[in-house]
Formats: sequence, C-alpha cells, structure tokens
Amino acid sequence: METNSFVLKGDVCYNISKDLFDLRPLGYVVCVNGHSAGVYDNGSLPEQYTALPLIDCGHQLIVPGLNDIHVHAPQYGFRGIAMDLELLDWLNTYTFPEEKRYAELAYAENGYSIFAEDLQHSFTTRAVIFATMHVPATELLMDKLEATGLKTYVGKVNMDRNSPDYLTDGSAEQSLSATRKWLSEVESKHYVNTFPILTPRFTPTCSDELMKGLGEIKAELGLPVQSHLSENLSEIDWVKGLCPWSTCYGQTYEHFGLLGSARTIMAHCNYSTNEEIEILKKTDTYVAHCPQSNAFLSSGIAPIRRYLQEGMNVGLGTDVAGGASINMFRAVADAVACSKLRWRCVDQNLAPLTIQEAFYLATIGGGSFFGRVGSFAKGFDFDALVLDDSGIRSPRELNIAQRLERFCYLADEGGKLTAKYVAGRQIQL
Amino acid sequence: METNSFVLKGDVCYNISKDLFDLRPLGYVVCVNGHSAGVYDNGSLPEQYTALPLIDCGHQLIVPGLNDIHVHAPQYGFRGIAMDLELLDWLNTYTFPEEKRYAELAYAENGYSIFAEDLQHSFTTRAVIFATMHVPATELLMDKLEATGLKTYVGKVNMDRNSPDYLTDGSAEQSLSATRKWLSEVESKHYVNTFPILTPRFTPTCSDELMKGLGEIKAELGLPVQSHLSENLSEIDWVKGLCPWSTCYGQTYEHFGLLGSARTIMAHCNYSTNEEIEILKKTDTYVAHCPQSNAFLSSGIAPIRRYLQEGMNVGLGTDVAGGASINMFRAVADAVACSKLRWRCVDQNLAPLTIQEAFYLATIGGGSFFGRVGSFAKGFDFDALVLDDSGIRSPRELNIAQRLERFCYLADEGGKLTAKYVAGRQIQL
Repeated sequence: METNSFVLKGDVCYNISKDLFDLRPLGYVVCVNGHSAGVYDNGSLPEQYTALPLIDCGHQLIVPGLNDIHVHAPQYGFRGIAMDLELLDWLNTYTFPEEKRYAELAYAENGYSIFAEDLQHSFTTRAVIFATMHVPATELLMDKLEATGLKTYVGKVNMDRNSPDYLTDGSAEQSLSATRKWLSEVESKHYVNTFPILTPRFTPTCSDELMKGLGEIKAELGLPVQSHLSENLSEIDWVKGLCPWSTCYGQTYEHFGLLGSARTIMAHCNYSTNEEIEILKKTDTYVAHCPQSNAFLSSGIAPIRRYLQEGMNVGLGTDVAGGASINMFRAVADAVACSKLRWRCVDQNLAPLTIQEAFYLATIGGGSFFGRVGSFAKGFDFDALVLDDSGIRSPRELNIAQRLERFCYLADEGGKLTAKYVAGRQIQL
Repeated sequence: METNSFVLKGDVCYNISKDLFDLRPLGYVVCVNGHSAGVYDNGSLPEQYTALPLIDCGHQLIVPGLNDIHVHAPQYGFRGIAMDLELLDWLNTYTFPEEKRYAELAYAENGYSIFAEDLQHSFTTRAVIFATMHVPATELLMDKLEATGLKTYVGKVNMDRNSPDYLTDGSAEQSLSATRKWLSEVESKHYVNTFPILTPRFTPTCSDELMKGLGEIKAELGLPVQSHLSENLSEIDWVKGLCPWSTCYGQTYEHFGLLGSARTIMAHCNYSTNEEIEILKKTDTYVAHCPQSNAFLSSGIAPIRRYLQEGMNVGLGTDVAGGASINMFRAVADAVACSKLRWRCVDQNLAPLTIQEAFYLATIGGGSFFGRVGSFAKGFDFDALVLDDSGIRSPRELNIAQRLERFCYLADEGGKLTAKYVAGRQIQL
C-alpha cells in the first residue's frame, strides 16, 4: 500500500505515560503523511479525516510498533542452542566461530536472508542491529533490511584486540579504515530505511587507539554508537585490568567521546555503579535492557526500576542469540518477570515493573532513539501493529488492557500479526 | 488410528539418564501393543518388526511426550493477565472469583472445552490437574479430558477454611462427603484415560479435620494426592500460625497420611527446609517444579539442583494460570533459565540445570508418576511427539541434540507438532 494517509479502526492501546495506557475500544488512529494525526473515540472521527481510506480492523488490537534496540543479526542462526556457558566463554566457544562464517558472502546471503525475512514478519518495526566485522556482509545485511521497509540502524563491528585471529580487524588503523570505507559505501547507497551506527564490540576487544578513532568519526560525522556495558561480572573485572586508568567500565567509552547527545545505546548495564549511572545520565545514553539474554547467559538482572526512577533512557532488546527469540512481546513479558525475580531474590527496594512500564520500554522507551516513535500521540511517526488475539481463547470477556497484557505473554500461542505499518507504510507480511 | 503396534522412523532423541540423551538420526522407535519395544539405528530394525506399519517422519524429531504434573484447568481462562500480585492476594483478587464461575455448568462447559481442546493440541501427553471445588464441573472436565485420549489425573478441590463464602465446601464433613460422592460418580463412568486425585487446595484452606478425612480416604481407596507446598514466604508464615503443632509446612500433610508411596505431588517447594526435604524424601513425594509461575507470582526459584542431588522425584508443571503458557517445552526452557538466575542471584553452590536435565524432568521425571512413562526404553508406555522444526530456520547444519534444545526455546516460533501418541494411540490434532 503506497498511500501514506489513512485511518485504522479497532481496539486501540498505547502508552500516554510510563505507567498509563490510553484505551480506545473501536477507536480511530489517523495517519497523515506517515505521521499520527491523533487517536479518536468510536464515533468521533473529526470531519477532516472522514474522506481518508478507513481500514476497519474489527475488534483487533491496534498498538504502536515495537522497537528492538539490541540484536545481533549474525547470531540468529544459532539462537536457542549453546546456552550452557557464561558470556566470555560463550563468545569464544560459539559466537566468534559463527560470526567468522560471515566472511563468506554465500553464508551471509543465506543467514541474513533468514534474519531479514523473519524480522519483517515479526512484531518489530524498528531495530538497532550488530552485524559482524565484515564490511561486504554488513552491506549485504543492510541491503536486505532496506528492502523490508523496517527502520534500522546497523553496525559493522569493530574489534582489534583479544579477538581470535580469524575474527579481527587487525590493527586499530585497519579497523578505522574499514569503518570509513563501509560508511562511504553505505552513503552512496542512499538508503531511506537503513542507517549506519558505530559499533565497537565492547571494551575488551577494542584498543584505546581504536576507541579514540571511533570517537573522532562520531564527532566528525555525527553518527550514533552502540556497544555493551557491564553485562557480566567477569567482563567487568577484565575491563578494570585492561583500562587501569578508567574509573568505571562506562568511563572507558565516555573518555573517548563515544557517549553523548542521546545517540548511544549501551546494552545490558546489569551492574552499573553509581558513578557509571551518573555518566549514563549526563550523556543521555540509552540502556538496552535484554532480560532474556541476561537470564540465558547467567548474567543477572538489570535494575531497571532504578533507571526509570533516575529518569534514564531505557529500551528493550532481544539480544539474539544471547536471547533466543526475536519476539518483542516476549521481551516485554520477560522484563516484567525478571524484575519480579530481582525484587524477590536481590533487592526488595526496587519494585517489579508493571506491564504498562514494560510496554512503554518496548514502544516509546526504545522508539525515542529513532525520533518521535512509539506512540500514537499526534506528530509521532505512524508505526503500528494490528493484532488478532481471537486465537487465544477464553470463556471470559476481557478489556483491552487485559488483552494486550495477555498478548505479551502469549503472542506466539494463538496470537496473530495481521498488519504492520512503519512510518505510515504497510509492511508485507 | 486404532492400531497399537507400529514403527516410527525419524530423528529420535530421549533421555537415557538424567543428563544424557540417546540420539538416533533416522532411527526407529517401535511400538508394540502400546508399549515401546525399543529404539534402533537407521538400517537396523529387527526382523520381527519389519512387518509392522512403518510411519516415516523424515527428519522430524521424535521425542517422548511431555508430562505436565501441575496445572489448574479453571484458571486457563485468565492465563496471561492479572500478573501484578503475589500468591495470596492473587488468589483472593483474581483466582477465587474466576473459580467461582465454575459453579455454573454453562460457564464450565465453555471454559473446559477450551482447556481440553488446547491441551489436546499441545505438547502435553499426560497431566495432573486441579479442577475447582464443584463436583458437577469437575466431572464435566473429566468427561472432556477422557475424550482427548490424553492420560490425566483430575482433582475436585477441597477447601473448608479461609475461603470466600462463594467458594467453600462448607464444613470438613461436607467437603469429605462431596469428595466421596464425586469419587463414586467417577467410578461409575469407567474412564480409561482419566483418574481422580485427592486435592486439598493447600493447608491454609483445609482444616485439620478435613486433612484427616482426606488421609483416611487415601488409605482406604489407595488414591494419589496433589497439593501445594512452600511456594511463597507469606504462605509459609501463615501455615506456621494455622498449624502451631507442625514442625514444618510439609509436615502438615505428612501428619495426616497425605504423603507416601510415591503417590503424592507437591507443587513448588521453593523454600523447603532441610526437615521438609527429609519428609519429601522419605515419602517419595514428587516435587512439581513450576518455574514460570514462580517468576510471574514473584514467588522465587526452587532449588531443583539440590533436589536432584538428593535423588528426589521431580517433574515440571506449567501451573497455569500462575504460569501463562501450557507449552511444556517452554517449561523446560524456563527451568534452565530460572536455575541460572538462581545460581547467579541466590546460591552459587547449586549449578544451573542443563537442557538434558530439564528435558528429563519433563519426560521421565514427571512421567514416572504415571508408571513407566517418559522414555523410549523397552517396556515404557509409548508416548511420543513428532516435531517439525523446519520452520525454525538457520543457515547452519544442526545435530539432533541442538535441534531439540532449540525446540525447547522456540517451539512456538516456527516449530510444529505433527503427531502425538499416548500409550500407542494417536491423538487427533
């Protein structure tokens, strides 16, 4: 569908604040030129929109699209296996050998086709994605993602130390030069949906010289940055040894200008110290909370309640293949469940997340990294999912909020995505 | 299909011990008169079975059926909603009002039809189920389950104290009398798949007199028993107050003869003391581990590694609607994930469960409650699932163990159940 102005009618639900849903039974959501023109009650569609095409979704749920702000495309091929190790051993034993394969374009063609197709059919409307260090495969991934119509940031991974011989950029200079080559080639492609993001893998695999150079590219080109932070206790100890000059892990990025201006995503932040939290706050850095991955890799549970209390930017990530599922509804449910276990087992001062809060993280929380994204409020980009939950059967009458909560828990057990829009354009399902 | 002797051919996987899979690529599993006659390698089917009908499943996975040893049928209608409270408040606010509706047979007809149909189409081959206190609805549920072909135990719930006026048997005498009436009516139905199980809800809602009477019925009729134990800290405190004579919560069941002879299932056991563990061990009581429910109700995480080290009987339960999903593969994955978080956050002396161990719990672990169930070893009841995992796409070649692990994590994201057998009879899907 090429028209960018239309009206959806159905059971509308979205966050109007971190902890509150706006619910509109058989309400209208109006899209004008790819942006929301607001939400209206049943029977109250303003006169000026009555001439637009009306898509009647019946009693299906209409919710904002979900934003996955941390996922590794080349790891999709081994999702759900090799779940027996912690982070550092898992990287060396399973992840690096798999990423090595993306040196071959034929393997990348196969792996990235599957990833892009599955992401297109998923509940995700926008994503922030790690590729591998390989420039040709990364561009191939970007070509494929561009064709899906989803909005994504994609990063060629940088790594120049503590990396296996078969998966390293070589020197810092070589890594920076490959990055500039990649950025220049990407620029010439004139993508409209797909954008580059600087991607130092994490401090252990990136020398100070490399970090410094990436900081310079960031400043020069105004690019966003993604990386990992304080995911696992052994990793944090390692960073202390590698950067004896640093005051905390987070400072190893800040020092080189890699944080700042709300343009950086740090995945995990499970063990951020007070000092690290101050750095994340003052740089408006996004925390990508990845509850499934943090459980599966035995990493722990991030104190998301605290980050919300501190007013920090927080979104959700599936972190495939630390996480097994690209289902962002599952990420919402896992965020709630893990926050309960943290409350029970770790710290009763931090109350569990509510379903409203977790859904906020998946919509506006991560969406704001892309701009005005994640809400149906007037002026937001029109990203929407239409959800048929009639296959999740019950003898009860449920209200819209209950049906949305249930969909978070049971999306794949009877739920169905029937339409998906990104910036007003319908995605082929 | 009425024939009870046949051969399945495919990629076979089952536990030969708690921590070891037997893997047979394109192997045979032989069913003779509803029992396994063993597993054979590709090309090595013994002469005496070559005349049996051969069902070629290609490269689909063939695994034992999964046994859900703790699930509440009347709570299925509100699975995935109302996940904001802990156990005792959750019972009073959401669960008891929902169970009340099963006083009306029309509501029960609707609710139990959905439950029985969904269970029939699920990965579960056998289940141990709570109904409500209502005798007519419980019999209706049993009628419906009988027709599915699944093997189940079903309990009319007993409750005579600390229960709302709208959901109580009244006195202990009335509760016992209703139970005897139910048992007598069930006997006259001559079910072949469906069996009664005594079901004191839990100590807080069952007076000593009621417990005593149920113990007498157990002794008289040799019936099995199911209940809840040490799920939540407030619940445990409450039981201490209600039974000041008891040495631990578990003893409140043992004292009345409700444990013993490997015929009792206690759900949860998240906080069992050393003394309680000794009681469970000496009575061969089954622990129904329900990791999803224990997370969703903020209850905690059971020390299953310890129970395995102690040689205790342990199976898995979905505990719908404390848990949201009846997918037993999800229960396997959740058991692994929660054991990792327990290791990380609570006690590093108890190693996380492996996928082999968790799959053992779902097959033989809980299956042994039903007899020789949960394995393809010779003599076991022939319960099997045939699984098409070709929809879970990957550029990699995976071995059978990897494919089964992946199925546990992603059963509902591309996996498909194509055939299901219980005691050699094919279940209609």
